[in-house]
Amino acid sequence: MGDSNKWPEDVGILAIEFIFPKEYVDQTELEQFDGVSAGKYTIGLGQKEMGFCSDLEDINSLCLTALNKLIENNNLKYEDIGRIDVGTETIVDKSKSVKTVLMDLFKDSGNFNIEGLDTTNACYGGTAALFNALSWIESSYWDERLAVVIAGDIAVYAKGNARPTGGAGAVAMLIGPHAPIVVERGLRSTYMAHVYDFYKPDLTSEYPIVDGQLSIQCYLSALDACYKTYRVKTKDPEFRIDKLDAMVFHSPYCKLVQKSSARLLFNDYVLCPDKQKYYPELEHLKDVKLEDTYFDRDIEKLFLTRGQKVFDTMTKKSLLLASRVGNMYTASVYSCLASYLTTTPADELPGKRIGIFSYGSGLASSMYSVKIKGGPHLDKLINSICNITEKLDSRKKVSPREFSDILQKRAETLHDAPFTPSTSTDTLFPGTWYLSHIDEKHRRKYARKT
Amino acid sequence: MGDSNKWPEDVGILAIEFIFPKEYVDQTELEQFDGVSAGKYTIGLGQKEMGFCSDLEDINSLCLTALNKLIENNNLKYEDIGRIDVGTETIVDKSKSVKTVLMDLFKDSGNFNIEGLDTTNACYGGTAALFNALSWIESSYWDERLAVVIAGDIAVYAKGNARPTGGAGAVAMLIGPHAPIVVERGLRSTYMAHVYDFYKPDLTSEYPIVDGQLSIQCYLSALDACYKTYRVKTKDPEFRIDKLDAMVFHSPYCKLVQKSSARLLFNDYVLCPDKQKYYPELEHLKDVKLEDTYFDRDIEKLFLTRGQKVFDTMTKKSLLLASRVGNMYTASVYSCLASYLTTTPADELPGKRIGIFSYGSGLASSMYSVKIKGGPHLDKLINSICNITEKLDSRKKVSPREFSDILQKRAETLHDAPFTPSTSTDTLFPGTWYLSHIDEKHRRKYARKT
Repeated sequence: MGDSNKWPEDVGILAIEFIFPKEYVDQTELEQFDGVSAGKYTIGLGQKEMGFCSDLEDINSLCLTALNKLIENNNLKYEDIGRIDVGTETIVDKSKSVKTVLMDLFKDSGNFNIEGLDTTNACYGGTAALFNALSWIESSYWDERLAVVIAGDIAVYAKGNARPTGGAGAVAMLIGPHAPIVVERGLRSTYMAHVYDFYKPDLTSEYPIVDGQLSIQCYLSALDACYKTYRVKTKDPEFRIDKLDAMVFHSPYCKLVQKSSARLLFNDYVLCPDKQKYYPELEHLKDVKLEDTYFDRDIEKLFLTRGQKVFDTMTKKSLLLASRVGNMYTASVYSCLASYLTTTPADELPGKRIGIFSYGSGLASSMYSVKIKGGPHLDKLINSICNITEKLDSRKKVSPREFSDILQKRAETLHDAPFTPSTSTDTLFPGTWYLSHIDEKHRRKYARKT
Repeated sequence: MGDSNKWPEDVGILAIEFIFPKEYVDQTELEQFDGVSAGKYTIGLGQKEMGFCSDLEDINSLCLTALNKLIENNNLKYEDIGRIDVGTETIVDKSKSVKTVLMDLFKDSGNFNIEGLDTTNACYGGTAALFNALSWIESSYWDERLAVVIAGDIAVYAKGNARPTGGAGAVAMLIGPHAPIVVERGLRSTYMAHVYDFYKPDLTSEYPIVDGQLSIQCYLSALDACYKTYRVKTKDPEFRIDKLDAMVFHSPYCKLVQKSSARLLFNDYVLCPDKQKYYPELEHLKDVKLEDTYFDRDIEKLFLTRGQKVFDTMTKKSLLLASRVGNMYTASVYSCLASYLTTTPADELPGKRIGIFSYGSGLASSMYSVKIKGGPHLDKLINSICNITEKLDSRKKVSPREFSDILQKRAETLHDAPFTPSTSTDTLFPGTWYLSHIDEKHRRKYARKT
């Protein structure tokens, strides 16, 4: 056990490994292919490119790759790990967890004493996994080893409006004390409710049922609720969102994140105890209630304009991966954190506080914040994600026709057994784990591309 | 937050609510119906009766019932709850968690700030849920509210050998400090590995794929591994299993539990540093290795005989629910804990230490222990489960033919939408939540039997 009856210092994220597919489709080309108006995906949704997986990858292989690379790139030993929590909504088995598949990597080390399982609710599972790992490290059950949190998903939609909001990726985060990204104690708010905005009741399909309009309303109302509680927890009656240095959001598509950034400014207005003093020009809005405005175009436009600078400064650069890989469900909000860290000059990072809003349909949501501490640990962390842009640029663009065929094939063979993927491993980055075979009893075998 | 930087005292289980179906099938009658040799299920597996659900119940309704009754029977307010963790492997949606459905019960209270999600790996999910709740209460994120851990499953098998090992049930446990059942700090061991002993890759079916022989081997090897580490953590070089007062196990069927009890005695022998002194009569076994003995009938028989008294004293009465309701997957090991508590005279409980072995195929396993503290909290807890035997006796026996038809209908309509269950609510205990309708978009509606 750790220091008896004392929480360790600076518990948070020690290292990040972010992985995404080598192949992507261009959203402008997809607009043309789908025969929709120019700009519908690129401006309307704010998306540039979308990563996707062939039949070579499933949720197990994505998580194997993320974990294996995290261990290798940070010179860790498998003996160093005492807990693994996996967040995902890409379910290939109703009983057997991804976590157990990952245990194969620990075979040679003989370390099988590793707590933690898979946890699921739409895009929120990674955050629940992180919270569970953080609590473990502060608990009497912690044995001074490190935790790993893995969030990963393959997000694919049926042909139609929602398809351009897909993506695929996974993140593995090393969690422990003395971290350069410290999760702030006492600053966490949560809002959960029973709704059917996005769900996956058709277990034979990878595609969800989505009520797009309801989902936006749920996302924004959860944001309102979490922000309200978070503000109270800061114990600062004059707290405003720009008192943080950055704000990252779960990103189903980038445009919703920009609207959410503006929404927080609108919240600051609504929650302001002295509107007349601070917002004399908004006199006409003084009686507006948050819950009446989810689809109020005038208010949205007003605060998007007023909030442009706040968005540009605090949030825009966090959308690098979200705009170029797409929605990665549980991994998305952490792609935004990684993007912010890798696009901000390293010497500007120490001391910065970042707000994080995590949302999963159904619904589960939380807001919390992290503070960045300078020093060699931070240098190491930045180093571990510094090649993200380079890696994005090194991907292979695939035509919308080919992309559509690959998704079609994926859907048709999803539950085949026995099954051997037919795609060439040339489509994978080096070091990627892939599905090599499913036998007649549905047992999956994996191999690694050297 | 709680006492800053200090774990609260006596964190553990404050109350238990155990629910099971009103209808059951008799295992002797099932033997006759299935045309197998007399005693195959009743003596070979050690099972007496098996509970089952009609199309009126799903995992959401089971958990709604358990949570609602826990709150009612303990005069709690929904505002008192700060966290809910659900463990289940009965998946009806790949994205939306059971936890979010439970949030409907909190509507009137306005309490939506409740952490925790669903966690999954076969029968182990409830234990992972419990561990997460315990850690939260010891962490800086705890806000002095109570946690609820819910473990529930509907265990059904295709016609054949495995069908008599089904069951259904759920447990809701109230978790907090100053508990009468205190989870012992520092005494927890975990063993996880990647195997395909029992899994559910056919997402269209409620039935698992089971490699029965492998599953027994995995269960026993996990027991060996967990026990070895647990023994080390007791820091007592002379620790033997009978230094605990009771030992409860995950029970897929009762006979395996008796074998597991004997297996721990065999472990005590193998791990004994001075076999010649303490076990002179077992000289012929001195070179035997645990991993060579999973199916060694002679050793099994020898230790079953030697261990009869230990089993009778420490474990037998924990099998009340397991033998009369059957396997309830994540809820099973907690059914054993509840059975032990309800069948032991209340005045004998204070001071007793109970070992708990939780196993989930795939695999994930842990051993830990609890200590019982006397006082009014214990009286309340005992009171909350004192009617289990009475409730078991008040159930309705259904013929194997009818049982088989109900399971057939369940399998056929499992994914229908729209769908309205046709079974009468007469088949439910009062206070049971049930599925009233699934609409064309697969949205489930629930109602409560008054």
